[in-house]
Amino acid sequence: MKFRNFKMVGYVVYGRGSFNQLDEIIEPERKEGPMIFLVDHFFEKKPLVTRIPLRGADKIVFADVTHEPKTSQVDKLVQQLKNEFGDISGIIGIGGGSTLDLAKAVSLMMNNPGSSADYQGWDLVKSPGVYKAGIPTLSGTGAEVSRTTVLTGPAKKLGMNSDFTPFDQIILDPELTSNAPVNQRFYTGMDCYIHCIESLQGTYLNEFSKSYGEKALELCRKVFVEKNNWDDESDDKLMMASYAGGMSIAYSQVGVAHAVSYGLSYLLGTKHGIGNCIVFDKLEEYYPEGVREFKYMVEKNKIEIPQQVTKGLSDEQFDAMINVSLGMKPLWENALGKDWEKIMTRKKLRDLYEKL
Amino acid sequence: MKFRNFKMVGYVVYGRGSFNQLDEIIEPERKEGPMIFLVDHFFEKKPLVTRIPLRGADKIVFADVTHEPKTSQVDKLVQQLKNEFGDISGIIGIGGGSTLDLAKAVSLMMNNPGSSADYQGWDLVKSPGVYKAGIPTLSGTGAEVSRTTVLTGPAKKLGMNSDFTPFDQIILDPELTSNAPVNQRFYTGMDCYIHCIESLQGTYLNEFSKSYGEKALELCRKVFVEKNNWDDESDDKLMMASYAGGMSIAYSQVGVAHAVSYGLSYLLGTKHGIGNCIVFDKLEEYYPEGVREFKYMVEKNKIEIPQQVTKGLSDEQFDAMINVSLGMKPLWENALGKDWEKIMTRKKLRDLYEKL
Repeated sequence: MKFRNFKMVGYVVYGRGSFNQLDEIIEPERKEGPMIFLVDHFFEKKPLVTRIPLRGADKIVFADVTHEPKTSQVDKLVQQLKNEFGDISGIIGIGGGSTLDLAKAVSLMMNNPGSSADYQGWDLVKSPGVYKAGIPTLSGTGAEVSRTTVLTGPAKKLGMNSDFTPFDQIILDPELTSNAPVNQRFYTGMDCYIHCIESLQGTYLNEFSKSYGEKALELCRKVFVEKNNWDDESDDKLMMASYAGGMSIAYSQVGVAHAVSYGLSYLLGTKHGIGNCIVFDKLEEYYPEGVREFKYMVEKNKIEIPQQVTKGLSDEQFDAMINVSLGMKPLWENALGKDWEKIMTRKKLRDLYEKL
Repeated sequence: MKFRNFKMVGYVVYGRGSFNQLDEIIEPERKEGPMIFLVDHFFEKKPLVTRIPLRGADKIVFADVTHEPKTSQVDKLVQQLKNEFGDISGIIGIGGGSTLDLAKAVSLMMNNPGSSADYQGWDLVKSPGVYKAGIPTLSGTGAEVSRTTVLTGPAKKLGMNSDFTPFDQIILDPELTSNAPVNQRFYTGMDCYIHCIESLQGTYLNEFSKSYGEKALELCRKVFVEKNNWDDESDDKLMMASYAGGMSIAYSQVGVAHAVSYGLSYLLGTKHGIGNCIVFDKLEEYYPEGVREFKYMVEKNKIEIPQQVTKGLSDEQFDAMINVSLGMKPLWENALGKDWEKIMTRKKLRDLYEKL
């Protein structure tokens, strides 16, 4: 199809305190097995855990999201759940983008044979997963509305892109993001900001994605440029920025920052949000205005962007990053046009990686 | 639930020419019976009809949308389809808001017993309808994303509001709106503009609805205030304005113009878009800035708003309109606050109706 037929999430609830509706929302989805709450390990022993509406054999599983999600991690989680319960009614991801992506992947792999690595790509998933709901506790990833789940596999970092991937339900409760660590919140918010700059300046774009991207960017600016303190309004707006930024991906693509940052996280395990910031900080040549505003936000919000993260890497390591990065063809084409391969040579990309 | 759990449409495709994907999109939805294409009678003998991908027993049914859709009209259509085909695979609405609402209602009534009038209200529909897709040919109604289908019944003008009501699929092809009659296009665009003014100035609102409402309003302004000619960009943007305006209704409500206009269309059959314009034109007291901008757009776009439409009506007729209008309690509360009944007396509303 020339225009993507975009699968939407099934239900959205937005509101301060809407997390309290979780029990009522999932009640009609309960079948034979339990509900599994896959929770970002950051919340272990935090009050949020006590608010999870456990019933019967329901179980809370903490997800170690120190690193980007791996296909091996998905496969292990699925095996554990199958061994312990056989079937489950559904899985509820509560956390940042990594946790949400893990929840989506586990849902799919409960009903599809083999390893999640077999499904890294586009439309390889053949059966719907079990019921899945996503509850973001960080704003900016867009994972709550995306049709992918980004995974690092044995051979590649690539998502399980499919119409079965989006959540059946998302709960957008801005109260849940209010206690996020300041740095983490910034990096994740910048994930949204950066991808809007990349998509709005890209060669793939239509009015659908443009209107969502513009709104997301405007909301990011309100929060990180205009406002002088962090309050409820910041959480409210950043949560909508994340949602709108995610929707804008329907007919757009990210660009240079994401393509380069993918190589970084493949090799070094650098988390997506901070990786994008490390890269975007050096992209004046490609996004001059966006990078200027980014540096202003970094300063205003008193954030330190890590420097010299690629110092001392071997030629083989640089090559590995370059290979992963140049594999992201649609991103490069969106950013630099059809002739991108003439512009972004291996030499030029190596120089860029050395600057990081 | 305190916060509405908003059911989204299943799939969205947006793009100039995306109508050409219709055959491919509905192919997996074909079951025993035919697909029914319910098309606005405006398109009878127009080229669009020849582009409809008929297969097997598929049938085009033209919908007479001279007046607002009625429950009796829905019931008759359903009976005809049941008599002729027994079961159908699905129904594809192609037209303005009335046609889309008819398509949604017919889909539901194929699988629910009784008359559509039995389901006017909230969450009265118990079974999902047949597969339904909506393809707007006018922008501004928001019917493409709403969870209602506004119907005039024997006792009331009220929609079948339910989680089963939203379309499974919408196709947003801005090419389809380019030949709409200028007046009609304006009135329908203003439906979106007016409802954004009402919802953004209302007492019900949260950041979800605000961000959609602001975007819709911005797009309407681009088209009707800033631009000096009608071109592809106008169609592109107004189609997104309509979509965003419809989404903004999730956590907001319309206000005085809609409440008054409902009475008008109940009694006189005035179509929704033009009815809103007739009313909004006289609402300086409630929406001073919005009405000022509205009058500017009317003048700039060389539109005549009908005047004196209630002249010569009897007391009984005014009472009928007032009764319908005052029944729209959430609209009044959104517009005027909890104490709205003290503000909007029958006398005051009668004066307002007499001004129209």
